[in-house]
Amino acid sequence: MTFQVHADVHAFEFERAPVPFAASEPPAVDATLDSRGELSIRLHPKHADGTRELRVRYALHGAAGAPVVIVQGGISADRHVVTTADGGAGWWSAIVGPGRAIDTRGCRVLSIDWVELADLGGAHAVDSADQADALAAVLDALGLRRARAFVGSSYGAMVGLAFAARHPQRIGHLVAIAGAHRAHPLSVAVRNIQREVVRLGARLGDAAAGLDLARRLAMTTYRGEREFAERCADAPVFADGRFQFAEEAWLKAAGASFVQRFDGARYLALSESIDLHRVEPEDVRVPTTLIGISTDRVVPLADLCELQRRCGAAAALHVIDSRYGHDAFLKEDAQISALISETFTLIGNAT
Amino acid sequence: MTFQVHADVHAFEFERAPVPFAASEPPAVDATLDSRGELSIRLHPKHADGTRELRVRYALHGAAGAPVVIVQGGISADRHVVTTADGGAGWWSAIVGPGRAIDTRGCRVLSIDWVELADLGGAHAVDSADQADALAAVLDALGLRRARAFVGSSYGAMVGLAFAARHPQRIGHLVAIAGAHRAHPLSVAVRNIQREVVRLGARLGDAAAGLDLARRLAMTTYRGEREFAERCADAPVFADGRFQFAEEAWLKAAGASFVQRFDGARYLALSESIDLHRVEPEDVRVPTTLIGISTDRVVPLADLCELQRRCGAAAALHVIDSRYGHDAFLKEDAQISALISETFTLIGNAT
Repeated sequence: MTFQVHADVHAFEFERAPVPFAASEPPAVDATLDSRGELSIRLHPKHADGTRELRVRYALHGAAGAPVVIVQGGISADRHVVTTADGGAGWWSAIVGPGRAIDTRGCRVLSIDWVELADLGGAHAVDSADQADALAAVLDALGLRRARAFVGSSYGAMVGLAFAARHPQRIGHLVAIAGAHRAHPLSVAVRNIQREVVRLGARLGDAAAGLDLARRLAMTTYRGEREFAERCADAPVFADGRFQFAEEAWLKAAGASFVQRFDGARYLALSESIDLHRVEPEDVRVPTTLIGISTDRVVPLADLCELQRRCGAAAALHVIDSRYGHDAFLKEDAQISALISETFTLIGNAT
Repeated sequence: MTFQVHADVHAFEFERAPVPFAASEPPAVDATLDSRGELSIRLHPKHADGTRELRVRYALHGAAGAPVVIVQGGISADRHVVTTADGGAGWWSAIVGPGRAIDTRGCRVLSIDWVELADLGGAHAVDSADQADALAAVLDALGLRRARAFVGSSYGAMVGLAFAARHPQRIGHLVAIAGAHRAHPLSVAVRNIQREVVRLGARLGDAAAGLDLARRLAMTTYRGEREFAERCADAPVFADGRFQFAEEAWLKAAGASFVQRFDGARYLALSESIDLHRVEPEDVRVPTTLIGISTDRVVPLADLCELQRRCGAAAALHVIDSRYGHDAFLKEDAQISALISETFTLIGNAT
């Protein structure tokens, strides 16, 4: 039996006695929940005066009444985390789903589409703190007191850290993958150039070309050095008036597909939001599992070490050995699953 | 006494008996040579049919009659290596000059301005092999049989490797700093995007803006991660309608000054030349000293290790520990000087 619930579902969602979390057998549940909709919330944007009312799109999927796990991905991810019968493939279905590390037979996965700058009427920027506050407001609107865990990757990890600092009573554990308490200045610099390229294209009349190139540049930072070298081993060939490189063909395809599904304004706001992100590690007073990637050139391990050392609660740091760079959170399913399962087993009866 | 010689100076330059090279006392010389000019040469471009006649700007500076050392830098460097009374500051005057590691009291330093695509009428591209051939032709035109050493940095190191593979009889030793037998694919990808940004600006009517952003992007690859973080520690401030980041201010200044001294066509051709560069290490049959930089994100040490392992002649690899990334060849004067001095002492009497 599948529920489809849209907007303002307070009456439907209610708190139950905790259900065992990462047990080898999923809890007996009377229904599979698949709820998507829009909720009206109110928040005070970090970079604006006063409060704003806005609508947030959420998805809640899993075993009805089971503990809640918040899952958020990178700036280009959305609330469609899990593969569903009518919604198609979820972006993290290797990690989240029935029998997966985040087992939807034993929990309910909550995710939102990122709040955009336009939602915050007149704010200077959208901050990771705003995303965290939006998630807390969504918990309220859904009548959910608390999430068992928050599992965030990339920008989602930054939002998870902001959430842990601002709403520590609302989560039992944070799993932050490939995200730190601040963006590294070198990554800030490269994203700044991405935004300048988007602005250049828009200013000169070809916004799509600007966004395309910005995404290509982003892709060069997401991948591992060695993996990239293996992918692009072919020698350049002269065609159409100039030399064509294997690297360019790959980047072109990545840029073209991105332009189809994203727009410049959203990109500018979310990219800037990464760079504005700042959480004092000492303010993170929720037990935390940090997962870093050996080859990540966006989030250096040194920053995760500092975060772990300064964290305001117990924090473990695991490093995944991967050739995929920052994108390993989308590629290293076995390693990510093992670490999440281990974490969930440890916290299962403690939170 | 200073000579100023322009164009076709065969009569002036002649071979002498070798003068001791890196002796503690400079050789007794009867003159200081400071010769700059243009030479007419002929070469067969790698990416064209037939030969081309072109003019190459060179500088030859040091102790008249002393052994020749070829010095070439990155794509934005020029022949003005040494500081001279009337020519102003040279770009590598910390390393090359009287009493420096490359001591102009004991050698003559030869350098050229890079051959540009426009010089090769109709060629598809300008190759590092073309630069090497141009240098060999300049040696011919100046009546110089052989250089004692070739010291190349960055693109200059690539040209040095091409020179060693194509004209092994013309140099005694190669010192290649921060350059390998091929460009790394990830660096190729980032340079490809730099060129696309230059093309985007040109196509949409603001070529300077495109070149500016391309240079900013290049700068992010030239510097070390940690050094960058220390430079850009200030928090962003909201001004002129959006948040301004410390990283952006630094990049902006770098882009603006570059646009003053470079043009898009030259940038496109020399950037592409780096990416087309390919030398089989086995073809390098000249004793070689490779210098890598621990934090170089343009030229990974793994590529220098492979080059050293496969080199067709004896090759030593030294790694400079630096926070400056690729740009360490312009920053780590003491370490670079020590390695060059050590190398010159070793080869002093052998070549």
